[in-house]
Amino acid sequence: MKEKVLEFLKSQKEYISGEEISSKLGITRAGVWKNINKLKEEGYNIESMTRKGYRLKTTPDIVTKSEVSSIIQTKVLGKDIRYYEQINSTNDMAKTLARENAAEGTVVIADRQIAGKGRLGKNWDSPGKTGIWMSMILKPDILPMQASQLTLLAGLSVCEGISRVTGLECRIKWPNDVVINGKKVCGILTEMNAELDGVNYIVVGIGINVNTKDFPEGLSHATSLSQEGGKQYMRRYIIKGVLEAFEKDYMIYKTQRNIGHFLQRYKDYCITLNSDVKIITHQEEYTAYAKDIAKDGSLVIINAEGQEETIFSGEVSVRGLYGYI
Amino acid sequence: MKEKVLEFLKSQKEYISGEEISSKLGITRAGVWKNINKLKEEGYNIESMTRKGYRLKTTPDIVTKSEVSSIIQTKVLGKDIRYYEQINSTNDMAKTLARENAAEGTVVIADRQIAGKGRLGKNWDSPGKTGIWMSMILKPDILPMQASQLTLLAGLSVCEGISRVTGLECRIKWPNDVVINGKKVCGILTEMNAELDGVNYIVVGIGINVNTKDFPEGLSHATSLSQEGGKQYMRRYIIKGVLEAFEKDYMIYKTQRNIGHFLQRYKDYCITLNSDVKIITHQEEYTAYAKDIAKDGSLVIINAEGQEETIFSGEVSVRGLYGYI
Repeated sequence: MKEKVLEFLKSQKEYISGEEISSKLGITRAGVWKNINKLKEEGYNIESMTRKGYRLKTTPDIVTKSEVSSIIQTKVLGKDIRYYEQINSTNDMAKTLARENAAEGTVVIADRQIAGKGRLGKNWDSPGKTGIWMSMILKPDILPMQASQLTLLAGLSVCEGISRVTGLECRIKWPNDVVINGKKVCGILTEMNAELDGVNYIVVGIGINVNTKDFPEGLSHATSLSQEGGKQYMRRYIIKGVLEAFEKDYMIYKTQRNIGHFLQRYKDYCITLNSDVKIITHQEEYTAYAKDIAKDGSLVIINAEGQEETIFSGEVSVRGLYGYI
Repeated sequence: MKEKVLEFLKSQKEYISGEEISSKLGITRAGVWKNINKLKEEGYNIESMTRKGYRLKTTPDIVTKSEVSSIIQTKVLGKDIRYYEQINSTNDMAKTLARENAAEGTVVIADRQIAGKGRLGKNWDSPGKTGIWMSMILKPDILPMQASQLTLLAGLSVCEGISRVTGLECRIKWPNDVVINGKKVCGILTEMNAELDGVNYIVVGIGINVNTKDFPEGLSHATSLSQEGGKQYMRRYIIKGVLEAFEKDYMIYKTQRNIGHFLQRYKDYCITLNSDVKIITHQEEYTAYAKDIAKDGSLVIINAEGQEETIFSGEVSVRGLYGYI
């Protein structure tokens, strides 16, 4: 009913009386009053004026199921949205839902993560309402070894989705960090549950710093959309841009099961290519030249001896010679 | 206490009175009687004779935690055994336990699976007390794409473990079916939970037909150890053989993280090599010559055009030209 009251308020330009809302929606005046208060609590800016009634002034930066659902134009991704004000980790929740047979395309969105996860067991800082912390449940018919292709595709879609909505120039640091002006604005954590013969489900977690102002010490290579764009962004429109971009590519990928179709676009965005990089393994660090992205998504480098090597995501960390990229 | 009564009975060659058991173990006569009855229910053949007392005649084909634990000599595998009389699927249980942080090496054993799983979503027939239905929880520090190596290793260990205990000549059908006289005696189902950067845990499910007499229709390529060996086998000694063989190899694999050390041994057992095979994909079937096993565990074939192809487990099904192998 709260959603119906909200929809009704959104459809009105002028003040509308509680009585009219009550009769149009078939609820009591007390019910109207209760639901208006709930919406105010959620952050909606609803003016009330004696004798005139109610008016929705602005819809703030809200990423609830109803706000996101009302604007995204997708067929599969986000048809089922699970919104949480606060959660341990959207990836963990998505994995639990996937185990319980949540449909492909289910998206978990949280305003705040208490125990957000980054790659390699690192923490991911997810302060309240400043970023997009979301996870998608995917069930592609691919082999586990192909999952790294999907994560490249996710990086590409986030990059393009953000660019389209904000106009900011995004690039990709292989395999899937999205960077603006040389600083990281988005991280992607892909987890899977698989047999050797096929993937049961994949969870792609996407963390985007949107309106983040202060980063913890030691995160000098992190930035946010608002820091780079010089203004605040509505998170739900970034979510819309990313989900719509990803769905389009993902549907093609599901039928083709390889990234051939996307490879050139990925390379065009990839800031890692054609530069010297530092390869960091468990045992050693060495310098190499990043030459190409192979069809399986791996990074082709030329080492100091002039030999070509193929680097898989996860094997190593790739850094710029003088900093993050 | 039941275990203590059992241990005590095992240590005695002659009849032992209830009174003596009672005083030695510090339990009441009624307690002795109750535990003896429990053991009888589990299948232990305990004779009771007026005035003489009790005597353990034979230990039947029992695979409970205490029976298996008392004979295996391993450091990690099976240090924690979870035995179930009946269970849906040992793999599913192992995955649940792994999620709840069960230790590496935990082994789930069931007398009967109600919903046993085979590869590619097939059912695995697991009738009561005739086979070994067990799953191991492993936590190697490897990438998800390396998990197929581990499953080859598991196939090799099962093959060698069974051979050693039964004297039967086992072979491996790539990637990891164990066959005797051209018929399948064991299937392995490997499942994993992973990030792209590393495996969280792997569950290796092993199903061995031990004393199975009748197979369902349509399973003409299945056999059991007893059908091939012409006698009944004690399942716990097969379990012992397999776990001990696998632990030895697994410990080496964990430090080397590749199957180089095992590749020649695997090839020696592999019945698929150096023969014509039928490659069955989603779209087509074609004939090829199975030439080699690559270092990553993939099958190297030569197709009708004389070109070399690399086949990954799960991509295709490989069958003999005129039947199963």
